Amino acid sequence: MRMRRKKHREERMEACSELLIKSISDYRNDLKAIFDDDKPLHMEIGCGKGKFVTEMAMLHPDINFLAVEKCSDVLVLALEKVKAAGLSNVRFVNGDANMFSDFDTNTRCDVIYINFCDPWKKSGYSKRRLTHGNFLAMYEKLLVKGGAIHFKTDNQMLFEFSLNSFSDYGLRLKNITLDLHNSKFEGNVMTEYETNFTNLGQPIYRCEAVYQNQ
Amino acid sequence: MRMRRKKHREERMEACSELLIKSISDYRNDLKAIFDDDKPLHMEIGCGKGKFVTEMAMLHPDINFLAVEKCSDVLVLALEKVKAAGLSNVRFVNGDANMFSDFDTNTRCDVIYINFCDPWKKSGYSKRRLTHGNFLAMYEKLLVKGGAIHFKTDNQMLFEFSLNSFSDYGLRLKNITLDLHNSKFEGNVMTEYETNFTNLGQPIYRCEAVYQNQ
Repeated sequence: MRMRRKKHREERMEACSELLIKSISDYRNDLKAIFDDDKPLHMEIGCGKGKFVTEMAMLHPDINFLAVEKCSDVLVLALEKVKAAGLSNVRFVNGDANMFSDFDTNTRCDVIYINFCDPWKKSGYSKRRLTHGNFLAMYEKLLVKGGAIHFKTDNQMLFEFSLNSFSDYGLRLKNITLDLHNSKFEGNVMTEYETNFTNLGQPIYRCEAVYQNQ
Repeated sequence: MRMRRKKHREERMEACSELLIKSISDYRNDLKAIFDDDKPLHMEIGCGKGKFVTEMAMLHPDINFLAVEKCSDVLVLALEKVKAAGLSNVRFVNGDANMFSDFDTNTRCDVIYINFCDPWKKSGYSKRRLTHGNFLAMYEKLLVKGGAIHFKTDNQMLFEFSLNSFSDYGLRLKNITLDLHNSKFEGNVMTEYETNFTNLGQPIYRCEAVYQNQ
């Protein structure tokens, strides 16, 4: 997503600095140590303006959330949203998924959310898709035994690619739906994108992919 | 599918009697013994008018095919199609999938095709869907180690149900496509239904589900 540069971005981010992890590599052995308590840790890769993580954190005060976003101009909006909601169970990091590539095994994350990531439509770019096998290998290091990816997209090609990628990697697929908003799935929290796509009548695809053999 | 009763049906079936297995339970220990040679055995559950099995048998003379159809008025057309093509690698049986329920384990089938089966749309009838877990347990008995189900449907609800059912049963999903005729899948043979649905612009869903831990 291209965003206009936010006015006073640095000052605004600084005003939310207690929510922002400056040096994520300090936690390369244990991501849970970001928080003072031992609640389960869920991550969102690409949190955008933060609607999803904010609502999830409100609904699930018993879970800690780490939200990752590479675009500072979007991240500032997410930071302000969580700060305004007064939530203590959310932290942010400014970067992309690759920042975790040299992390240790089992950094104790329970769930990774990937919502409406870039489909990289040209097949030559398939390695950039966040559900490519190379990324699945990286997520495996971050997750606990039985940890899972919860994946949503409006892009049929990306969903098909991802189902095959998850399955080829040996993950167990669960709760697959080809039309989330006309399914029996309960407790869905919509992202900004999802609200827009759904208003256009676009079906939303969703599945969970569980790591089994760690 | 409801069919008008075929004229002279019994005589026409009798004229193809060499293709029709009268007593399938004779082969309850070894379905491959239906044929005199030891080629791999593929089964189609619900072959309809036989377009798929006839074309598959022509394309793959190195494979034997057993086609199952419960409706005699449809089966007679399939029998006549295979007889007219002069194929020696196809046999038929008149019945439904449940006729295999008391078969022994590992009757040495390699692939089971399920093409455009009845979706049984009402959730109360889900046990009748040919991809329900109860049927998957039965197919497991018929298949060799690493044997697979190749599944096609035009029904989104049934495809979603089947993906979850396969995965919940522990099968490994492969080659999932949400739009077969716009995918890279090669060697697809269309059924009669598939031709009609595709002409209407309806997407065709397909996947393979592999038994792993036998």
